[in-house]
Amino acid sequence: MITPVLLTPGPLTTSLQTKQAMLTDWGSWDSDFNRLTASVCKDIVDILNGADTHVCVPLQGSGTFAVEATLGTLIPPAGKVLVPNNGAYCLRIARILRYLGRGVVLLDHRDDEPADPARIDAALSADPAITHVAQVHCETGTGILNPLHDIAKVVHLHRRGLIVDAMSSLGAVPIDLATTPIDAVIAASGKCLEGVPGMGFIVIRQDLIESSPGHSHSLALDLHDQWIYLQKTGQWRFTPPTHVVAALRAALDQFLDEGGTVARGSRYRANCHSLTQGMRALGFQSLLPEAHQSPIIVTFHAPKSPEYRFDALYRGVREKGFILYPGKLTQVETFRVGCIGAIGSDVILQAVDAIAQTLQELGITP
Amino acid sequence: MITPVLLTPGPLTTSLQTKQAMLTDWGSWDSDFNRLTASVCKDIVDILNGADTHVCVPLQGSGTFAVEATLGTLIPPAGKVLVPNNGAYCLRIARILRYLGRGVVLLDHRDDEPADPARIDAALSADPAITHVAQVHCETGTGILNPLHDIAKVVHLHRRGLIVDAMSSLGAVPIDLATTPIDAVIAASGKCLEGVPGMGFIVIRQDLIESSPGHSHSLALDLHDQWIYLQKTGQWRFTPPTHVVAALRAALDQFLDEGGTVARGSRYRANCHSLTQGMRALGFQSLLPEAHQSPIIVTFHAPKSPEYRFDALYRGVREKGFILYPGKLTQVETFRVGCIGAIGSDVILQAVDAIAQTLQELGITP
Repeated sequence: MITPVLLTPGPLTTSLQTKQAMLTDWGSWDSDFNRLTASVCKDIVDILNGADTHVCVPLQGSGTFAVEATLGTLIPPAGKVLVPNNGAYCLRIARILRYLGRGVVLLDHRDDEPADPARIDAALSADPAITHVAQVHCETGTGILNPLHDIAKVVHLHRRGLIVDAMSSLGAVPIDLATTPIDAVIAASGKCLEGVPGMGFIVIRQDLIESSPGHSHSLALDLHDQWIYLQKTGQWRFTPPTHVVAALRAALDQFLDEGGTVARGSRYRANCHSLTQGMRALGFQSLLPEAHQSPIIVTFHAPKSPEYRFDALYRGVREKGFILYPGKLTQVETFRVGCIGAIGSDVILQAVDAIAQTLQELGITP
Repeated sequence: MITPVLLTPGPLTTSLQTKQAMLTDWGSWDSDFNRLTASVCKDIVDILNGADTHVCVPLQGSGTFAVEATLGTLIPPAGKVLVPNNGAYCLRIARILRYLGRGVVLLDHRDDEPADPARIDAALSADPAITHVAQVHCETGTGILNPLHDIAKVVHLHRRGLIVDAMSSLGAVPIDLATTPIDAVIAASGKCLEGVPGMGFIVIRQDLIESSPGHSHSLALDLHDQWIYLQKTGQWRFTPPTHVVAALRAALDQFLDEGGTVARGSRYRANCHSLTQGMRALGFQSLLPEAHQSPIIVTFHAPKSPEYRFDALYRGVREKGFILYPGKLTQVETFRVGCIGAIGSDVILQAVDAIAQTLQELGITP
């Protein structure tokens, strides 16, 4: 059996070196493991240029656990959050806020329209009760990239808090905390840093995490408690996913060797370019105009042929060694192809070939 | 550098085969991975003989995440929970319940005293407002084994719910759901099943999980939502720790090959016997009488010598290839040694030798 290449937005295809880092067991109380945690946290803060102001708090679980933990810890019970909405992960933030009993105001955009700083400005002017903005950086539902720096400037002028879900951008799209005012940036191990899934991390303003005890609705997701314990002991409060942390350390070493965010972003952009060119040559149209397209994942309109079924396309392409991702739009039939992971344009072009061959087998034209 | 043997109650030393199962990347949406999840869940339900009544819901994060998720999902907001308390993990349950705003009644026992079914009986008779009992099976704080079957019978007679933290017993101490009435049994991947840490699982009565929508305080920890989605799609709601799940599958294969709970329990008891005999020969005294000692982890009184420091003992033993665990009692100075993981009595005896040698180096007698 060949292991298929994952063209999905995390879990993704990781390097053998990253996976081999999981061949050791670590004691979660041991100083060697504490050093591992500390070095991972330090490197992540440095990637965002946040060492003067921010700290990194790791958290067990998937990225959504980290998003919920951040919202629950930073937003006081009486807080009210503006969520510029252009996709599934924006809506997930709103859903979490409703679970938490925090106020939520959705600022709806079209799926193919980036969040608009001017509309955010107007919404904040109109409602002084809004305490925070929760912004998805790259909305993985479509692959759209939102203008984070401009949004941060607007939110900062209004003196509101800004929490950023950078799940599928951190490590590939630059974020500079020294020039872009953000309270907390959230991401996870199994995305553009190319680790394996199993932990999230939050790069958070130190003054804010230190002044937020008692906000959290949850012990497991209480970031303040997690941070205080980590500072005191060097350890995670509850059993860490030791092998996942070790894999992330190995992945970070490779990330730094590659040349950091700039180099990784370039590789992903080259992947994305090869993908969209190749797919266009087959007759596919991508959902987004190039200006708004992130280099992370591309949404394509499904073939219009009445015989088209995503499952059949998926299975055919999978047999040839590649795993596609379903669409996440409700109005239009689409599917998605990820550009991230330990792969280059050569692999992407092979995937396009596999898609072409499968369409031929199925007798479908895009 | 030699990799030290972990004499800790999870993470523990896993087999090479289990770690090698992490050398493959899995698509979280792919049918192969869905089958992996389903087979892991099926085997865990079967270990507890619960197939007629219970289902298994996996959850990202550490064991504590699974405990909080279970309490938040099964106990309605107006619920009130009796927590028979003889250690740190009982107190952690109480702490979670306070975060959740559920009523909590602690029934305190001494650290070295098993939870008493007669006292639980009396407490339930005295307070009809108590809706649930939350019982730790093996309290890892000391290593004491609580009489779960007798407690379950009492709780059942009172028609209250019973939630069991079986974190460090499942797979080593038999639990038979066909004869022991329990609403939910909670454990995690990196304990006696000898997987790696990163996920929990809850074996839960199907009728209860299906009748508990809207209870949870948290989206990420909403077991009802997780179960509904898993049933509908075969998938986890949010990115699963794919490599951890694959390692657990490999670990379960080895668990079944070894002969299941009976065989694993025997190996751990032999480990525990070698440990306590060897340590007694050195002059150490264990905290618990043999009748209450679980085969999971043993608490030893620290040497009385004024020169004794746990850190020095830890470091000396670590240099020789073994990782000990600190004590978790506030009144008495202790340390702990785990008996679990992919190790046999030979390794345990080597660890005892390493302890003996370190004491000699430090000039300390137990």
